[in-house]
Amino acid sequence: MDPKPVIAVTLGDPAGIGPELCLRMMTDPAVLAVARPVLFGNAALLRRVAGTVGLPCPGIGPTLVDIACDTPDSIVPGRVSAVCGATAYRCIEAAVLEALAGRVAAVVTAPLNKESLNRAGHAFPGHTEILAMLTGTPRPCMMLASEAITVSLVTTHTSLTSVPGKLTTDRILGIVRLTDAAMRRLCGEPPRLVVCALNPHAGEHGLFGDEERRIIEPAVAQARSEGYAVEGPLPPDTAFLPSRLGRTVAHICMYHDQGLIPFKMLAFDNGVNITLGLPIVRTSPDHGTAFDIAWTGKADPGSMRQAILTAARLIPSPQPSPTRGECNDRGHQHRSSP
Amino acid sequence: MDPKPVIAVTLGDPAGIGPELCLRMMTDPAVLAVARPVLFGNAALLRRVAGTVGLPCPGIGPTLVDIACDTPDSIVPGRVSAVCGATAYRCIEAAVLEALAGRVAAVVTAPLNKESLNRAGHAFPGHTEILAMLTGTPRPCMMLASEAITVSLVTTHTSLTSVPGKLTTDRILGIVRLTDAAMRRLCGEPPRLVVCALNPHAGEHGLFGDEERRIIEPAVAQARSEGYAVEGPLPPDTAFLPSRLGRTVAHICMYHDQGLIPFKMLAFDNGVNITLGLPIVRTSPDHGTAFDIAWTGKADPGSMRQAILTAARLIPSPQPSPTRGECNDRGHQHRSSP
Repeated sequence: MDPKPVIAVTLGDPAGIGPELCLRMMTDPAVLAVARPVLFGNAALLRRVAGTVGLPCPGIGPTLVDIACDTPDSIVPGRVSAVCGATAYRCIEAAVLEALAGRVAAVVTAPLNKESLNRAGHAFPGHTEILAMLTGTPRPCMMLASEAITVSLVTTHTSLTSVPGKLTTDRILGIVRLTDAAMRRLCGEPPRLVVCALNPHAGEHGLFGDEERRIIEPAVAQARSEGYAVEGPLPPDTAFLPSRLGRTVAHICMYHDQGLIPFKMLAFDNGVNITLGLPIVRTSPDHGTAFDIAWTGKADPGSMRQAILTAARLIPSPQPSPTRGECNDRGHQHRSSP
Repeated sequence: MDPKPVIAVTLGDPAGIGPELCLRMMTDPAVLAVARPVLFGNAALLRRVAGTVGLPCPGIGPTLVDIACDTPDSIVPGRVSAVCGATAYRCIEAAVLEALAGRVAAVVTAPLNKESLNRAGHAFPGHTEILAMLTGTPRPCMMLASEAITVSLVTTHTSLTSVPGKLTTDRILGIVRLTDAAMRRLCGEPPRLVVCALNPHAGEHGLFGDEERRIIEPAVAQARSEGYAVEGPLPPDTAFLPSRLGRTVAHICMYHDQGLIPFKMLAFDNGVNITLGLPIVRTSPDHGTAFDIAWTGKADPGSMRQAILTAARLIPSPQPSPTRGECNDRGHQHRSSP
């Protein structure tokens, strides 16, 4: 039997670049070298896209799980619709259930269109919140990884005003542990972790802001006492200088743009989005549906490929065995390698 | 008479790299091509540093204004002391008074040590606050300029919690005007201005944060109606992608690290700090006192040189005439070039 792990690949919004990216992944040599991809998508829609773009389409069976779509012929590339949102959602739901049951080792998701989701009655800001709900995870952690820079976010889609009130020592410590565990699998060695301060100049000894002293420093101290190679809280504006970046470094960021500004500057369009803290392994490319070039075959498959390769590295065993608990914040973080 | 503008250069902390950088500037060909530098510093201390480093020292006279220092022989490179703080402060005060009187066209300041300043009884976070006090400017604006990236900050040294409450439409609009006027002088052409949002994804249509709608969008609309080439509020994480950067672009940033994270990534150690909104032209290098290499001659004079060249470009006329009002937020912003 093929020892490579089975990885579910979900269609994303049918009107975007998701279908053609997923189709390409099914025959991608780099992907096939490390995984057995299984596409979760509507077969009729995929055949339409495959015909338009000129790609092979797998038949329904072990590599294509056919997901219901009410009117696949009505879908127009680049157009928002409820039928697209409903289909995209069903693909995720089916893949996540398979992962929770241990029948696939990871889920890699093609991009969604939020408006189509909303029209279908699924009012979620994005994948992370859907995955949290489907897996019963109260507070997953968003991590963005690339060769140049990797960031984990303590808070994500929340107003800047609400950020300080959402920081707790426990939350930061939990994210240090999750990030360390994920980085060990990704890099094959213990990472260096950089915890960013919340305030400019790290609060200048309490002169402007005391969250460093009250919340962040205790988390760093506790993490150090547990053996993690962690420094901080560092002034955010010098935390991302070249000497503090690299393949084996991850930054713990207090808010979305603290991490996303430097990440997009250094890894725009080639990063991988990883959801930590779930009972399943999940990654996605770090780009959107690109409605303007959907179904033209022009979409760059690099980030989608990278998302699958990254998922394969995050899976703790080469067998498509249950992955529950492997990526949460308990256990394993002190192993020296995956 | 030499038509080049007279530019005051202040010593900075005597125990840091300021003295040797100032001495180098007095004979720097690029500086002398555009300005007549006048050093505001203690002559005895400067002679000591010049002897140690092996640089020429100007005599007291038109190019060296001798500033009192109680015990110049007591100063040790790299050591914090009240005598250093007192001397550094007097140099700034003297230079600013000359600038306010119209006898120098700009002030370029070498770096300060905050602890020495404090020991001398001058409890300021940095130059900007000293200059605000000496010139009676309630809210100056900090701008950081480089070839790669230029940012103006709406708020600076304040806790992240306090940022949203300090944003007003008037303040943002004032900074758009100041930044446009400065950029026209720096680039010789009208700039493109990018206004950053406060919240991630620019608040996602009010889903997380309404400061964009309430405060920032009205400022951008008003600025557009006044003829400024301004876009925004943009999601902060995509505002600094390469297509939105360049010599003739400036970003208006809502808080310190929103601007300083990308600035330091792209222009670490070669940026110039400009204080906008003062009745005088003022710049400084974007580095500190570097106590560890003070008086060794190793300090890179590049940023200090760039600060003087930038000051020369910001001066509206080649004569050392009064500069009051030339860099404030009224008038001139619609001229197509300096």
